[in-house]
Amino acid sequence: MSAIKMFEKPLGMRDTFPNIYEKLEQIRSTGRELLRGRGYEFIKTPSVEYYDTVGKASAISDARLFKLVDNQGNTLVLRPDMTTPIARIATSKLLKEKIPQRLAYFANVFRAQQREGGRPAEFDQMGIELIGDSSVFADAEVIMTAIDLVKAYNIEDFKVTIGHAGVLSCILKDYTESEQQAKALNELLVKRNYVGFEEAVLAFDLPKTKSDALLAYIEEAISLPSIEAIEKYVRKNEALEYMRNLSRILDAAGYEPYIAFDFTLSSHMSYYTGMLFEVFASGSGFPLGNGGRYDGLLEHFGSQVGATGFGLRVDRVFEAMPKIEIDNNDVLVLFSAERFSEAMTLAQLLREQGKQVTFQAYEGIENVNALKAQFKLVNEFKSKEA
Amino acid sequence: MSAIKMFEKPLGMRDTFPNIYEKLEQIRSTGRELLRGRGYEFIKTPSVEYYDTVGKASAISDARLFKLVDNQGNTLVLRPDMTTPIARIATSKLLKEKIPQRLAYFANVFRAQQREGGRPAEFDQMGIELIGDSSVFADAEVIMTAIDLVKAYNIEDFKVTIGHAGVLSCILKDYTESEQQAKALNELLVKRNYVGFEEAVLAFDLPKTKSDALLAYIEEAISLPSIEAIEKYVRKNEALEYMRNLSRILDAAGYEPYIAFDFTLSSHMSYYTGMLFEVFASGSGFPLGNGGRYDGLLEHFGSQVGATGFGLRVDRVFEAMPKIEIDNNDVLVLFSAERFSEAMTLAQLLREQGKQVTFQAYEGIENVNALKAQFKLVNEFKSKEA
Repeated sequence: MSAIKMFEKPLGMRDTFPNIYEKLEQIRSTGRELLRGRGYEFIKTPSVEYYDTVGKASAISDARLFKLVDNQGNTLVLRPDMTTPIARIATSKLLKEKIPQRLAYFANVFRAQQREGGRPAEFDQMGIELIGDSSVFADAEVIMTAIDLVKAYNIEDFKVTIGHAGVLSCILKDYTESEQQAKALNELLVKRNYVGFEEAVLAFDLPKTKSDALLAYIEEAISLPSIEAIEKYVRKNEALEYMRNLSRILDAAGYEPYIAFDFTLSSHMSYYTGMLFEVFASGSGFPLGNGGRYDGLLEHFGSQVGATGFGLRVDRVFEAMPKIEIDNNDVLVLFSAERFSEAMTLAQLLREQGKQVTFQAYEGIENVNALKAQFKLVNEFKSKEA
Repeated sequence: MSAIKMFEKPLGMRDTFPNIYEKLEQIRSTGRELLRGRGYEFIKTPSVEYYDTVGKASAISDARLFKLVDNQGNTLVLRPDMTTPIARIATSKLLKEKIPQRLAYFANVFRAQQREGGRPAEFDQMGIELIGDSSVFADAEVIMTAIDLVKAYNIEDFKVTIGHAGVLSCILKDYTESEQQAKALNELLVKRNYVGFEEAVLAFDLPKTKSDALLAYIEEAISLPSIEAIEKYVRKNEALEYMRNLSRILDAAGYEPYIAFDFTLSSHMSYYTGMLFEVFASGSGFPLGNGGRYDGLLEHFGSQVGATGFGLRVDRVFEAMPKIEIDNNDVLVLFSAERFSEAMTLAQLLREQGKQVTFQAYEGIENVNALKAQFKLVNEFKSKEA
């Protein structure tokens, strides 16, 4: 192997160096504290799962899965998300003990990259799943928790856009002439291809009332300040009533400033069945995270129980939040062999005071000055002979 | 797929449920605090590495590696240990900036299991690497840090046994008649096969003085209270002098009670070149962790710099330490829809007081009593009509 190859990492794989590590650690502990404070319990699942169990049920496309084969010939995957593994757990053991179940995770997930492009193939996700509560209050709790979490990272300028798979499908059904047309429009919305949506609407040769309604809808429904604005496009139905309720709860709790409705929101996460949402920091092209209700996923694992949740991408939170400053509290204690005990007594004392103390023998280093330059405070125990 | 298979995990893969998760979290934070207090900086490396870079250099046998193939046809591995990835980092970027480098990690590693047997295929390791200091003080620091870490977990009854690859190879060379004989004996020691060692010594048909010496050595050298006891088996050499120095430092620092010397200690970690050690809790058949000097490994990555370190297995620390009790500080706030705002005000107040507050609508649950039974403190905001 060439010397250059020697230090390479697989496509999209990254090292985390100390100063970034400590900042991510702060993100992790802030998140843990907030979620624990709401009664969410953290769990961990294996990095490797059966393809048949978790890989197939995941909303992540097959080409982006890291697959491997075990000794018994089973196909395994590196977990591409945490929702599916948690659904596996929730429908097996835990759920019988405690309902509703409030679960949280902070975990790395894996998505294979096809080419160099700066996108990570392994990244941390932090999130919650609220399982076994089908009420609108569960969805409200999930959205409010997502908002509070983003606020806890001092991200001021962000928006949560909320949609509903049921409202959207009702609109698409009412204003098209066939299921194929509705499906084609939905797929364009998943890709956020609004231009393509308009082109498709015109190409379908729909009655003018319908095409006009769809074109007006695609302009307006992307960011509605209130739920009432969608009412002109959609006949009364359960989904809309649900969203009205959700909106009322969020208003009552004072979350209105952070919320907009987007009834064009559609997810490649095919297991979302009801409310779904995205969190966007202003100025970022990618969502910080997303969530929604996914009663369908648990059915895949043989349970009728409702579930809702969200996940944030830790790397994007890190980019969106104000710079974290980590105090340099590092002290250096340098010693010659004969003064080891004396130096060690001081090092222990400083550590008891909460200092981070590097304890270094002169004889172990060549460039003393380069080392000393890295510390604010340096204590030297030189040989007395010198 | 059958319903049973549905919930299975790959061989040796495990879920971590909330109460264990919180205890592991305490282990993690205790370790981080101690290691940060000694100037060790935490880093993270990718879960997936090139086989050619990290897999081949690792001391873990090929059959125990999880291998996969990327889109470009490269063979990848799930990292089997952290020493090799850190050696990769240390010899590429970081090392140029700062010498010596004190690095720490808390990371999951992967070892494929051949059959069901309760052994994990993924487990957490916590450890340090001190890179760029070849002095005996670096080895002393690593051993003392390992001891302090075990003590921080309130494990009282444990021993660190220290050996030296150089002393052992000198003894094996002096008392055998060929390199093959020495090598065969060394391999038996790696496997801790002392009976096999004695059988081999007798089978070699050595001069009686040599075989007697080896048989006495295998009895005695396994646990020596002091370094002097090995002197009768080995001629004066640098390695022995080094160990004498190490022993003096550890004594001066007050670590004598935790230390024994084992000059039969030999590791399958072929990169250990000098001092090596194991940490055993009394009553456990497996070491809590191990470490040593591995100047050879960095040479593999093209650097001449010395390195020493250790790693603890978090699962074994967890088993060996006294039971951790986690305070149940959980409060339940139950509310009917009409009293949402009122209930939420209380929930927020309790959270500000540091309580862990589950906030639950009556309409989201079927069995209210089952839920209430899980909490010490329950606040109810029932509908006023009821």
